[in-house]
Amino acid sequence: MRKGAVTIDKGGVEISSNLLSGVSLPAAVVHEAPLAHNLEWMQRFADAHGAQLAPHGKTTMTPALFQCQLQAGAWGITLATAPQCRAAFANGVTRLLMANQLVGQANMAIIASLVEQGATFYCVVDSQENVRQLGRFFAERGLTLSVLIEVGVTGGRCGCRTQQQILSLAEIIADEPALLLAGLEGYEGVVHGDNPEAGIRAYAKYLVDVAVELEAAGRFTEKNPLVTASGSAWYDVIAEAFDGALQQGSFTPILRPGCYVVHDHGLYREAQSAVLSRRPDLQQGLKPALEVFAQVQSLPEPGLAIMALGKRDIGHDQLPIALRRYREAGTPAQRLSVAGWEVTHIMDQHTFVRLPDDGQDVKIGDIVAFGASHPCLTFDKWRQLLLVDDALNVKEHLATCF
Amino acid sequence: MRKGAVTIDKGGVEISSNLLSGVSLPAAVVHEAPLAHNLEWMQRFADAHGAQLAPHGKTTMTPALFQCQLQAGAWGITLATAPQCRAAFANGVTRLLMANQLVGQANMAIIASLVEQGATFYCVVDSQENVRQLGRFFAERGLTLSVLIEVGVTGGRCGCRTQQQILSLAEIIADEPALLLAGLEGYEGVVHGDNPEAGIRAYAKYLVDVAVELEAAGRFTEKNPLVTASGSAWYDVIAEAFDGALQQGSFTPILRPGCYVVHDHGLYREAQSAVLSRRPDLQQGLKPALEVFAQVQSLPEPGLAIMALGKRDIGHDQLPIALRRYREAGTPAQRLSVAGWEVTHIMDQHTFVRLPDDGQDVKIGDIVAFGASHPCLTFDKWRQLLLVDDALNVKEHLATCF
Repeated sequence: MRKGAVTIDKGGVEISSNLLSGVSLPAAVVHEAPLAHNLEWMQRFADAHGAQLAPHGKTTMTPALFQCQLQAGAWGITLATAPQCRAAFANGVTRLLMANQLVGQANMAIIASLVEQGATFYCVVDSQENVRQLGRFFAERGLTLSVLIEVGVTGGRCGCRTQQQILSLAEIIADEPALLLAGLEGYEGVVHGDNPEAGIRAYAKYLVDVAVELEAAGRFTEKNPLVTASGSAWYDVIAEAFDGALQQGSFTPILRPGCYVVHDHGLYREAQSAVLSRRPDLQQGLKPALEVFAQVQSLPEPGLAIMALGKRDIGHDQLPIALRRYREAGTPAQRLSVAGWEVTHIMDQHTFVRLPDDGQDVKIGDIVAFGASHPCLTFDKWRQLLLVDDALNVKEHLATCF
Repeated sequence: MRKGAVTIDKGGVEISSNLLSGVSLPAAVVHEAPLAHNLEWMQRFADAHGAQLAPHGKTTMTPALFQCQLQAGAWGITLATAPQCRAAFANGVTRLLMANQLVGQANMAIIASLVEQGATFYCVVDSQENVRQLGRFFAERGLTLSVLIEVGVTGGRCGCRTQQQILSLAEIIADEPALLLAGLEGYEGVVHGDNPEAGIRAYAKYLVDVAVELEAAGRFTEKNPLVTASGSAWYDVIAEAFDGALQQGSFTPILRPGCYVVHDHGLYREAQSAVLSRRPDLQQGLKPALEVFAQVQSLPEPGLAIMALGKRDIGHDQLPIALRRYREAGTPAQRLSVAGWEVTHIMDQHTFVRLPDDGQDVKIGDIVAFGASHPCLTFDKWRQLLLVDDALNVKEHLATCF
């Protein structure tokens, strides 16, 4: 059973569905035009920096969007877990960067199967123990596994904490015939401090410096070793550091933003403002493409609307934002006001909105487009999203594979 | 693609999977014995109060568990949305209580289709506008719709705020030939105040009193009108109030707890302690049956473990709790300590654990069972959960239909 997107069949005639008349709400919606803009914008950004793009697929886990990203020029797709890699490969993604440790026999078996089927696969390592586990598992099967050493920071998440640990781990990897050291990986999103920008610049430079040192020591088995970092907030800073790497060696720099593809109305909107203030040369930034449409279900007291929308339907790291309102069965051009609408609370299946005291004509069944933050935790609420055009006609059902 | 639960195929021979050796982790797990205990316990509780049980299905959206609940004696299944009702009906649930307003033409069309297919269906109403919408929609199709008036409280969620509103709405319903007024519905979880127990007792008594008045006025079309309330925290107080209702009329009292079926390690554990302190006569309460098993993926610094577990995998209204630890490929009897383990942070795909400074032998790949709160927001992360026995053998894959 799939949530949402039922096309009403009137007397046996299937009518094309429109968000304002034919679709079971709530529904998660991707707008076609800003999606296309974002796909092209980020690829152009990576191209301009001589970097490859491996968008983080965990954000959407939507194979149709993976294909859009690859068609726009992406080098491959980044993923976080073995089942995610399996799902992406089953949907035609053949170059997979698992920006995470591969742990557990059953997960190793999933990846071994993908490698046997011809996948180009990379995962990250940060411990001798995991290197030994992987070396043994893949050697026993007569397979090789390409790994990247994860470069972490003290107080951060995973990853080697010191240069010495990285160099030692490279030696241990060299000892394992089944393992190929293909590059270095980092994630700047866990670098904190009073001046995050300076910290991230220093971290990116460190990542490049260590890569240069390992290359000089002949530790990489790959001709153009991978150097990869970046989420959706600091990709500009990472890309600048990678420019430097390219001048020093023959690396393949890879950026891995994920949320950019649909952007958002919260955390990443703020992050994008910061990118554009650092980089005034970048023309017109990313555009939010993901919304959840929901209906007013109750107006139980003056000044209070209860929406048929809940934690089951939308990311709620921040409270959703009411963006636009329509009358059911109306047209997209007939927009009604949401000025002064304030979301005050969200429950599993309900959202509370405080309405302004100005006599807005709000009706049960009114349809409201909500923005959210952040996209990863909106996509994962849905088995399918709806791709819509400017007229809110449903063009395509985008299946997810969480 | 489904997350988790891959059975390793060694040389063409499928081996039975065990959480400690053959299953891709993280995986969400339902333990068979406490599940059976909870199913029987809550049904016995309802029976003892002469109440029917319509467990809230939104918690699990797991048809196999709906069938367990029905087999244990449940009257029907409660749901929150039209697509949830469609999913339950498609999986053999024929009596559906939608404890929510039915809003939107497409959602009405879903329900009309279920009614045409023979479903026994009830939803709630709290406004003249929605009553008119439903009356028109179902009349145009020559169908009838059974509705319950929702009884709300000022400052609460949906529902009529005053007795006068309820009585007026009953008149408006009587005006709509397609609508049948089948009873009253409330949800005590939105009653707040300095003394919630007293507030909830008063609310439950009010619900019953209004039902008695409406029955005396001949407003119900059902011979044994439904009076229904209760989540998983205050069902004992509601059941006591419903005892009174039964003595005053010919009502069908219906309790709707949902989380009880797997219970939890947070909010509902506390709520259950409160139930047992109010009702010392109740033998041995509910038992937590839902856990998420995940593996240590990195030990990057002394005192820090990063688990391959994230917001994508487990409810995080409260931080998950480490319950037990096992070595991969070990036996369930060989439990390792998690004393002093403190979850400090959870990201989309990672959980941070502060380890005690006592030299516990923690290894990459160690498997940890985590408890969570609350269950609704753990189930919805998964397309399937694993039913396991005491030996952690996987007995059944429980598909969800979110």
